[in-house]
Amino acid sequence: MAPVTGIDRDLETSQPSLDPLFRLLAADLDRVNALIVQRMHSPVALIPQLAGHIVAAGGKRLRPMLTLACAGLCGYRGDRHIALAAAVEFIHTATLLHDDVVDSSDLRRGRDTANAVWGNKPAVLVGDFLFARSFELMVEDGSLRILEILSRAAAVIAEGEVGQLVTANDTATTEGAYLEIIEAKTAALFAAASRIGAVIAERPAAEEAALDRFGRNLGIAYQLIDDMLDFSARQSELGKSVGDDFRDGKITLPILIAFARGDAEERAFWRRTLEQSDQDDGDLERAMRLVERRGALAETLARARLYAAEAAAALAPFPDGPLRRALIETAAFATARGF
Amino acid sequence: MAPVTGIDRDLETSQPSLDPLFRLLAADLDRVNALIVQRMHSPVALIPQLAGHIVAAGGKRLRPMLTLACAGLCGYRGDRHIALAAAVEFIHTATLLHDDVVDSSDLRRGRDTANAVWGNKPAVLVGDFLFARSFELMVEDGSLRILEILSRAAAVIAEGEVGQLVTANDTATTEGAYLEIIEAKTAALFAAASRIGAVIAERPAAEEAALDRFGRNLGIAYQLIDDMLDFSARQSELGKSVGDDFRDGKITLPILIAFARGDAEERAFWRRTLEQSDQDDGDLERAMRLVERRGALAETLARARLYAAEAAAALAPFPDGPLRRALIETAAFATARGF
Repeated sequence: MAPVTGIDRDLETSQPSLDPLFRLLAADLDRVNALIVQRMHSPVALIPQLAGHIVAAGGKRLRPMLTLACAGLCGYRGDRHIALAAAVEFIHTATLLHDDVVDSSDLRRGRDTANAVWGNKPAVLVGDFLFARSFELMVEDGSLRILEILSRAAAVIAEGEVGQLVTANDTATTEGAYLEIIEAKTAALFAAASRIGAVIAERPAAEEAALDRFGRNLGIAYQLIDDMLDFSARQSELGKSVGDDFRDGKITLPILIAFARGDAEERAFWRRTLEQSDQDDGDLERAMRLVERRGALAETLARARLYAAEAAAALAPFPDGPLRRALIETAAFATARGF
Repeated sequence: MAPVTGIDRDLETSQPSLDPLFRLLAADLDRVNALIVQRMHSPVALIPQLAGHIVAAGGKRLRPMLTLACAGLCGYRGDRHIALAAAVEFIHTATLLHDDVVDSSDLRRGRDTANAVWGNKPAVLVGDFLFARSFELMVEDGSLRILEILSRAAAVIAEGEVGQLVTANDTATTEGAYLEIIEAKTAALFAAASRIGAVIAERPAAEEAALDRFGRNLGIAYQLIDDMLDFSARQSELGKSVGDDFRDGKITLPILIAFARGDAEERAFWRRTLEQSDQDDGDLERAMRLVERRGALAETLARARLYAAEAAAALAPFPDGPLRRALIETAAFATARGF
């Protein structure tokens, strides 16, 4: 699927990156980060310690950047996007803390997880704290519409996470069920973070819907690539962690495709390793070879690119300019990570 | 401290009970329960299964009853109290699910806990779901003031829970720190649940504050008794679970009093069992004898009665009638449980 804008040439000749978005949002992002630190505060010292650990590990701040960028794209000229971007990041951070407990993860982005350092108990409770704080920030903002969008997103995220648990170890999971799960657990917050940019700018419903569509498709593309990278030999060469999903028996698109295209012996392998959780030395390497040989990684990437193109196309109603171009490059970046 | 109303005689001659409150609120409570079942629904079947398990185990519905009763006490005549009582119960249920994970509890009110049946992972995530649902209910109600009160309470509850973790195993915890923790983890939701009754009835700030004071003092009394019953020989005779806090190294008022009043040998016992978590057969029985012998249970009960009397006194601004009398009896009940 061809990219949809005039920056095709750039995307083909150079690696797409988040840098343009970072540069455009740098000042706002500093304010968001300062507010995050301020609102993590609690007289219970362990809370800012633990929250600070994960916020610092924090990654790309992609979701709050979506709020900032979409507000800008809608011509918003106030301050509300700062606190709402922080609220979005708090929801995301709470989810990460609980995910790491649920997945018994010890590492996130190369650092020890909060649960590995402090144990599961405070990780669960500090997640709850950040979730409550996120609602306090939204209440201070005062928009019931935004509270509606983000409380709904929070419920849908939890549904997606439970759905993922339920389908774990089940190679009979359909692609449709898988897509529903990633749309819920990942794309719902991307969609909500983008949509609220239009809400605070008081733009018409069609623009809200366009930004929702942008965020939702971007989120699906992003998660598809995440799931693909878990089986990527290239990631493994780069010293990045691979095989977490495989070890947890998480059913992702690369597995579903490799399973569907596999012969009887391969299916027996997937059933043993995923359904019976019977994994030995060398099984991850074999899984990586199988998803590669059956074209499951290439197919997952191709699907992700369709969603990324859909995300970019959703921005058509908005005027061309640096922010729109940076968001389109963000969609391209989502499917170019790690290559 | 003498009770503060004309029903002294009844309280002295008969056991105070929640029955009058239940009877007065029966119709409303049926509507709350129906709404709870309806709003637990999710296409992910495990969510209503797991949530239904804990909601059914559900106990006394004390917190939503406070919302219903306080709304009635304020002369409220609409329907909003139903959904808000359900929201309060969802916050409480989410907290219970996460507590049982944090405490690794297998039993709650004589039933297997959700984490014991389904494991920690879905218990954490369904807690998140119920928490999000609770905010969806509040958003539908549409009062930013109530969203403010309950989002603040949710953050404070998490702070209290983390505070409890931090002070675990530390016999140097002060009584003040202990009281702060129980006020946060338990009394904040009692206070918020009561206060919002005045908010929806659009009563003056003084009545809001009075109901907050009622709920807060009731919550502290309630938690003090909970902490006392964990060491109660009578509970043990009734076949109820005792010693959970002791085994977890939770520092509660009975322990702080017994420690402060104990001799060197007793303090060494508390340090070994609580600080070094070195517990043997017979240690729980010895702990129960020590808190009894040092008058720590009687002292905890006496303190709880002061808070319960304070709760009852906070209702003075409201007109006498069946609801006020039932709430005063609820305060008496809080300190008469299990005797």
